[in-house]
Amino acid sequence: MYNIGVDIGGTNLAIGLVDDSLNIVQRISVPFPKAGGGPETARQIWQNTMELLKKAGGTLNDLESVGVVVPGSIDAEGSVVINAYNLGFHGEPLRQRIKEYFPDTPVVLANDANGAALAELYKGAFVGCSTAALLTLGTGVGGGLILGGKMFNGGMNNGVELGHMLLVNGGRHCTCGNDGCIEAYCSATALKQQGIKAMQENPDSMLNKRTGGKTERMNAKVVIDCAKEGDRAAVKVFDEYVDHLGSAVASLINLLDCECIAIGGGVCGAGEFLFAPLRENVHKKSFFENHGRVVAAVMGNDAGIIGAAMLKRDQDK
Amino acid sequence: MYNIGVDIGGTNLAIGLVDDSLNIVQRISVPFPKAGGGPETARQIWQNTMELLKKAGGTLNDLESVGVVVPGSIDAEGSVVINAYNLGFHGEPLRQRIKEYFPDTPVVLANDANGAALAELYKGAFVGCSTAALLTLGTGVGGGLILGGKMFNGGMNNGVELGHMLLVNGGRHCTCGNDGCIEAYCSATALKQQGIKAMQENPDSMLNKRTGGKTERMNAKVVIDCAKEGDRAAVKVFDEYVDHLGSAVASLINLLDCECIAIGGGVCGAGEFLFAPLRENVHKKSFFENHGRVVAAVMGNDAGIIGAAMLKRDQDK
Repeated sequence: MYNIGVDIGGTNLAIGLVDDSLNIVQRISVPFPKAGGGPETARQIWQNTMELLKKAGGTLNDLESVGVVVPGSIDAEGSVVINAYNLGFHGEPLRQRIKEYFPDTPVVLANDANGAALAELYKGAFVGCSTAALLTLGTGVGGGLILGGKMFNGGMNNGVELGHMLLVNGGRHCTCGNDGCIEAYCSATALKQQGIKAMQENPDSMLNKRTGGKTERMNAKVVIDCAKEGDRAAVKVFDEYVDHLGSAVASLINLLDCECIAIGGGVCGAGEFLFAPLRENVHKKSFFENHGRVVAAVMGNDAGIIGAAMLKRDQDK
Repeated sequence: MYNIGVDIGGTNLAIGLVDDSLNIVQRISVPFPKAGGGPETARQIWQNTMELLKKAGGTLNDLESVGVVVPGSIDAEGSVVINAYNLGFHGEPLRQRIKEYFPDTPVVLANDANGAALAELYKGAFVGCSTAALLTLGTGVGGGLILGGKMFNGGMNNGVELGHMLLVNGGRHCTCGNDGCIEAYCSATALKQQGIKAMQENPDSMLNKRTGGKTERMNAKVVIDCAKEGDRAAVKVFDEYVDHLGSAVASLINLLDCECIAIGGGVCGAGEFLFAPLRENVHKKSFFENHGRVVAAVMGNDAGIIGAAMLKRDQDK
């Protein structure tokens, strides 16, 4: 049997045909049809699914489910995309639109961060775990929780917002309106912004040389690269970043005693330069001597398709 | 059928015979036999259980389980009390000692904070909930989690330490060694300590009049009482306390989307004076418009016995 995994992003609509060994045996990526909205999205999912099935020598009878992840919030019934700003979906009954093309196949929707955690559970860092958390560090801080060996979408189906746990009560302003969320300290954006601040306060630092003092050329990678080379201002920013991220991870460990915490996002490109001090920091702050692993997420760009493809199986658990 | 619930504290050993309607039909409280350690504790549990059964007209055949909660950590197998400082139990094989008296009856151990959450699930604020959190504000901040409609003892069976999630990274020193834990801001002890500080900084405040300026007469209730009467210094301390507690509750909501968060401990005696501003604070900080309830825990002194009595049933769920 196959499962179709659909990863809808603001730029591309990625569709993969996933076999029982969780390999993506066929895949396609097409521009997200923003102008056509939900109806055209559903039609393209159908059309491309049929083509992928054909290429694999299969038919609709070989299809176990169609799973779809979107960068946004889904209603409690898993039917309607309440808000997905990048897609222009607001109150979009996407599940029903897709069901019209696949009347006899289960169709399941989920948030993409939850899907990414599910991909780690079935094929990545969380294989064999009952309790695990994924923190994805990007423009914001997203993530997903695995509880009881399943995807957890919040006790009231509102989702999980790991990035909006408070970390420094009353601290930096967060896009959500609160002051001091994990997101305001641990996102790649936060690292970049602290890099800009340090650059402006330390005109002689390597941060300035690398960017020519231009804020638009600053990013998380520049901070990490300069810190690797020992630039004092960059090291200070990076150390503070690791300390905050360590506290965020320790909070999750102290609350949930996770078997594994995976960190995703471009910041992980720093490798052991990030993970070695992060693990030390987390261990120091963990309430439990024998606590869970802190690792890099492994599913990368396939997380959306694999996670989406596993939604139905996870639901049936 | 009956279940025996045993609540072992540093002062008293409380034992209750609980019927299927979750009423404590017989109960006894005896001094905790600290000198006799685990063996004498087990013997007294047996002796008193037999007496309670007899009084109720029952026998061992009417006993479904013996559940025991202790103020300490239990090993992953639920057999050994690793550390319960108030009891002087360290590596105490309590389950086996009790089993020797009840060879044919299931015996289950748990941490008392977890037990309190379970009592709320079966008879109190969490009835009908799948996802809920109890925060008990006392000398420290304890608590328990209900996930999947069951007691959750951590993904690796290390327990859950709600009080040691980070709230103000790098902030007030906590007894656990970290700086900025929820416990350092939201315990009754923290409220008292801020009361002492405010008293010393504001010699004319009501806080001084009530205590005669004596730190040993300060406590959480004094702060609350003075705040109720509008004393400026006390109001400031209380408002900050509510803000921190609101952030702690909001963190739990944003992460787990709990259906209910219950607050336990003496501080709740403040009633709506605490809960009205707390709810407003939490609502403001919650990521979800439609979030879970924030209520006072209701099980009070019976939480230990009822929670302990339900351990076996919860395990079998």
